[in-house]
Amino acid sequence: MIINGEYRQSIWYDKACDDVFIIDQTYLPHEFRILSLLDLESACTAIQSMQVRGAPLIGVTAAYGLYLALRVDPDSLDIACRALAATRPTAVNLQWALKRCRDRLQAVRLDQRAELALECAQGMEQADVAVCEAMGEYGADLMEELWQQKRHAQDRLNILTHCNAGALATVDWGTALSVVYKTAQREVPVHVWVDETRPRNQGAALTCWELGQAAIPHTLIVDNAGGHIMQKGQVDVCVVGSDRTARNGDVCNKIGTYLKALAAYDNGIPFYVALPLSSIDFAIEVGLNQVPIEERDSKEVTEVAGIMPNGLLGVVHTAPLGVSTKNPAFDVTPARLVTALITEQGVVEATTEAISALRSLGGR
Amino acid sequence: MIINGEYRQSIWYDKACDDVFIIDQTYLPHEFRILSLLDLESACTAIQSMQVRGAPLIGVTAAYGLYLALRVDPDSLDIACRALAATRPTAVNLQWALKRCRDRLQAVRLDQRAELALECAQGMEQADVAVCEAMGEYGADLMEELWQQKRHAQDRLNILTHCNAGALATVDWGTALSVVYKTAQREVPVHVWVDETRPRNQGAALTCWELGQAAIPHTLIVDNAGGHIMQKGQVDVCVVGSDRTARNGDVCNKIGTYLKALAAYDNGIPFYVALPLSSIDFAIEVGLNQVPIEERDSKEVTEVAGIMPNGLLGVVHTAPLGVSTKNPAFDVTPARLVTALITEQGVVEATTEAISALRSLGGR
Repeated sequence: MIINGEYRQSIWYDKACDDVFIIDQTYLPHEFRILSLLDLESACTAIQSMQVRGAPLIGVTAAYGLYLALRVDPDSLDIACRALAATRPTAVNLQWALKRCRDRLQAVRLDQRAELALECAQGMEQADVAVCEAMGEYGADLMEELWQQKRHAQDRLNILTHCNAGALATVDWGTALSVVYKTAQREVPVHVWVDETRPRNQGAALTCWELGQAAIPHTLIVDNAGGHIMQKGQVDVCVVGSDRTARNGDVCNKIGTYLKALAAYDNGIPFYVALPLSSIDFAIEVGLNQVPIEERDSKEVTEVAGIMPNGLLGVVHTAPLGVSTKNPAFDVTPARLVTALITEQGVVEATTEAISALRSLGGR
Repeated sequence: MIINGEYRQSIWYDKACDDVFIIDQTYLPHEFRILSLLDLESACTAIQSMQVRGAPLIGVTAAYGLYLALRVDPDSLDIACRALAATRPTAVNLQWALKRCRDRLQAVRLDQRAELALECAQGMEQADVAVCEAMGEYGADLMEELWQQKRHAQDRLNILTHCNAGALATVDWGTALSVVYKTAQREVPVHVWVDETRPRNQGAALTCWELGQAAIPHTLIVDNAGGHIMQKGQVDVCVVGSDRTARNGDVCNKIGTYLKALAAYDNGIPFYVALPLSSIDFAIEVGLNQVPIEERDSKEVTEVAGIMPNGLLGVVHTAPLGVSTKNPAFDVTPARLVTALITEQGVVEATTEAISALRSLGGR
């Protein structure tokens, strides 16, 4: 992605200083900060505190985390895998990345592990970019088709998205937003409705920022507003990402996705999920009740971070002090509400048959 | 309602000083402030800036606003009605209250108008309390029935509500929350899931505060979480209020209500709407596309108010500066998703037939 005129990835390795860098997403959109991941601990913290987030980016960060651990102690593979796997429970890419790296690393001598871990991480990083671009192109085919059907009646193609499934959620391009970027490149006049995405406001903070950097027209709405604008005919299509998709096509994604899928279904609006094959959990038959749903801190619900009128970062508490909260970070959208999955191998139905056929193509 | 041990209404008239007082809801839950409405202008401001909000309370405040205008200028009935009617477009109680008062006031001499206006306002105030209590009792019958069915499997009756349809949205008791209070009085172990209700956070700020004052167990969730907890079997019933209900049973209520109704329907959970007959607009046949939906300021989406760590009130901006927003304040839930309406005249189906039969009982 281009940020302030310069090409950036969400994570990268700098050979000159042997350092791994990330964009610290907890300061966006107010400050653009780059952070160096020094060791295993800082990689774990980055994932847990959501300095990096988004299923694909978490996977790549975990792979780099292994490198950071092994360059200090080549015999720390097990402990590093356990520490990284424990950071966040829902996104399956984390486990997928760790398993892939581990399988390769276990096969080599201790003194070769650090070097191979770096190679693995860099390979995943580059593969993720290619996968996201491929997803974007397949999705853009769908969007172009929709636009051909609608262009006589409308002046733009209105895409609604939830959370941030953009370049910031991957190494570059994104999943759902890759579809947006590639559609815009084909000169379809795209406009994006951005769900705020409480409690962490990734839509307001990250998706708006990313779309702004890319000069894609967009409008921020609260999560509550999506159903209403669908009823009013102001949404042509929904495209979201996924943290884990079950074999039957049930999609686990950021909390609130299910509500938007219900509204899209109720209003006859196509609902697409863009995801790499690495987000499919072939071990889980049905998403509902089988995907572990992360419960996060109460403060995410009661405290809102942002920039204060004086220009400094600050936080306000909205509710009565001491209020009880429940804060599930993800929900599961049943496959019946999903029009299709957009993967790097093409567009497939959200059914057990179609998804099983993908397994040989690079799934877990 | 009892606030810090003292009985309070959301609005009241003090004969001793000839003053109308309100609880200024824009400071809750952080500060409890009482505000005196001095004149027509301050009544209009109170409604527009949401120092008072909630369809029934807006109606009563408008009635007092007429008194405040007429005690200064008995010939200002038309101008006062116009000013008050223009404050907020969606809640029909505002128009209903103004029409009712106006009809009576036009029939008397100018020198009698101020006195009669006060009488009208006080009458509406007291009627609102009675109406809310009646609604609460009818609703509690339903809740008790549900509890009888569920008590073997569960330790509490879980009611989900959206926005604030409590004592603070009326003169006392509330609409949806009156049902909660009356159910709790019958010793049903009630627990309330409170939707935060972006963008103005009336759930987090007002409903949690009100339920806390009443010692009703409750848990705050973000608006995105409701579907997930319904899927998990953690919601037994939804009860919400309404700002305007059409003759066919379509319910206009706080933005996001429609999404919760969809989720309730998808999970086989009853979805009740508690409303006084004064919230039914018999002039509107179908709610969708016929109820005017208020669009509010962009700042409500991008700025969040609350209390800062230093204990002072503050505001943070969450999104990139200058982002475009859309901020519809209400949406319409189609009657097909509504299990029944709870009114002061009993529980009725959300159908044209059932609602038409209510007209003679006190509707507009």
